[in-house]
Amino acid sequence: MTASLSKIGEDGLLQALTGHWKIDGAKVLVGTGDDCAVLRGEGRNHFLLFKTDAVVEGVHFSRKARPEEIGHKALARALSDLAAMGALPNAALVTLGLPPSEPVARVKAIYRGLERTAKRYGIQLVGGETTRARQLFLSIALLGECRGYKPVLRSGAKPGDFIFVTGRLGATQARKHLTFEPRLAEGQWLARRKIASAMMDLSDGLGADLPRLARASGVSFELNPKAIPLARGATLQMALNDGEDFELLFTTRPSHAKTLKKKWPFATSLHCIGVVRPRRNKSSQPEFAHGFDHFKQR
Amino acid sequence: MTASLSKIGEDGLLQALTGHWKIDGAKVLVGTGDDCAVLRGEGRNHFLLFKTDAVVEGVHFSRKARPEEIGHKALARALSDLAAMGALPNAALVTLGLPPSEPVARVKAIYRGLERTAKRYGIQLVGGETTRARQLFLSIALLGECRGYKPVLRSGAKPGDFIFVTGRLGATQARKHLTFEPRLAEGQWLARRKIASAMMDLSDGLGADLPRLARASGVSFELNPKAIPLARGATLQMALNDGEDFELLFTTRPSHAKTLKKKWPFATSLHCIGVVRPRRNKSSQPEFAHGFDHFKQR
Repeated sequence: MTASLSKIGEDGLLQALTGHWKIDGAKVLVGTGDDCAVLRGEGRNHFLLFKTDAVVEGVHFSRKARPEEIGHKALARALSDLAAMGALPNAALVTLGLPPSEPVARVKAIYRGLERTAKRYGIQLVGGETTRARQLFLSIALLGECRGYKPVLRSGAKPGDFIFVTGRLGATQARKHLTFEPRLAEGQWLARRKIASAMMDLSDGLGADLPRLARASGVSFELNPKAIPLARGATLQMALNDGEDFELLFTTRPSHAKTLKKKWPFATSLHCIGVVRPRRNKSSQPEFAHGFDHFKQR
Repeated sequence: MTASLSKIGEDGLLQALTGHWKIDGAKVLVGTGDDCAVLRGEGRNHFLLFKTDAVVEGVHFSRKARPEEIGHKALARALSDLAAMGALPNAALVTLGLPPSEPVARVKAIYRGLERTAKRYGIQLVGGETTRARQLFLSIALLGECRGYKPVLRSGAKPGDFIFVTGRLGATQARKHLTFEPRLAEGQWLARRKIASAMMDLSDGLGADLPRLARASGVSFELNPKAIPLARGATLQMALNDGEDFELLFTTRPSHAKTLKKKWPFATSLHCIGVVRPRRNKSSQPEFAHGFDHFKQR
């Protein structure tokens, strides 16, 4: 069971628990298996995005982390999932579990971090609750929307599309996972202009997340390892496996790919790292074209 | 700090953490302080209801509880909060925290309970996630709506209104808190017909919850203790303090009160237990007219 909760195992557990869930397509566009759930709103091009994400002390942050950064991370992780579909976040609820021994001052500082991040991105904090627990945890529920355009799913990549990432990969800065900024403006820009054919955020590392996108799209991929943008001091292996980059991974049609870097209006860097290929016959698991063995073994 | 997490202390902690949160009234009708957050939807009489609720092993259920009932309880608690505003629940996300040692079979059984309850009430399970934690917990995020009518808030009670409860109070059956049915149909009926002027669900016991409703409405109340419907074997003290009844507590104008029992179409029992009075001058805390000392001291 321990293995079930490791990176790949979490997918397996979720699959066992929720893989058989069926949705009513008239009301729900996306259930499990993407960055957020997508409910149909009013009219053809209105969608509600719905997401929860939890951070647990000792798992997602250490006791030593700055409290404000814990609050930031809890909310920013969920925001990153909305960014990955190109949605605008609106409102959040905060559930706090905490031991009775927890100093109130620390909890207040965690909430200050939450509030600051909510304000920066125009999210209304509309409620929540507290409960006793042995270990401090925060669970964020987030509601957002796409109005006048469609959210970008993981499943839209087609052979021939180019693969891009924002920013630089590899968590070489110890505090990056506590201080990252969700790519909301970038995600919305890509979605509104219909530039991204498929998109997700990088939470478990390119090595785990790109195969997920490929599986969802029913395609394979070919990466150019030399094109993968490394964070300062990061090796390729770190860029593939460290996780918690919270950058956007997306695909785009060749017609867009040519002019994308010129049109890109953000300071955030943008790199083309590979190309989408047809699904392979012999294996449903896509692989890195250049063969990273440790990855294949996962 | 231990006191902060007892019943009244939880209110105090939430107040300290979220009491200063401001909402944008153009987008949000209700933020903190009611059973759910209420966002404005499309058009005048469309509202989105947004709620999270967590249950923690050792706090909300014991290790010995039947797994299916744990799943039921987790979802039904959140549903009860939507019932308390008269809303129709639509979709839920499930966050599961669990120790690596947890048997997968038990977790699957918990999810079966969740799924059964979701099906019974027409809720779509649209996703969620799992995370490692030292203690098993489930956090449910729920989205619902009121379409064509307004949700019933805690703040609408007026002096002269009559106070009603559904069902019978006092958690004398050990498993009631695991098996209760949320009063969704009853809540919607009361809201659509504009019969309830204020409403909430009884989660912490009438003795804690009625003063909350009174505070939110800026009123006082007078209870008729003899009229409080006791569950079999329950004393008045249990009915006031046990909590986890998950019945509806609501107020209604005298014009409705007279005919309500005749019109009431449900098998669920209905009892008038008191009347709303003006706010007292000397104390903002409403009190039980007949003086339950142990309550006053809380």
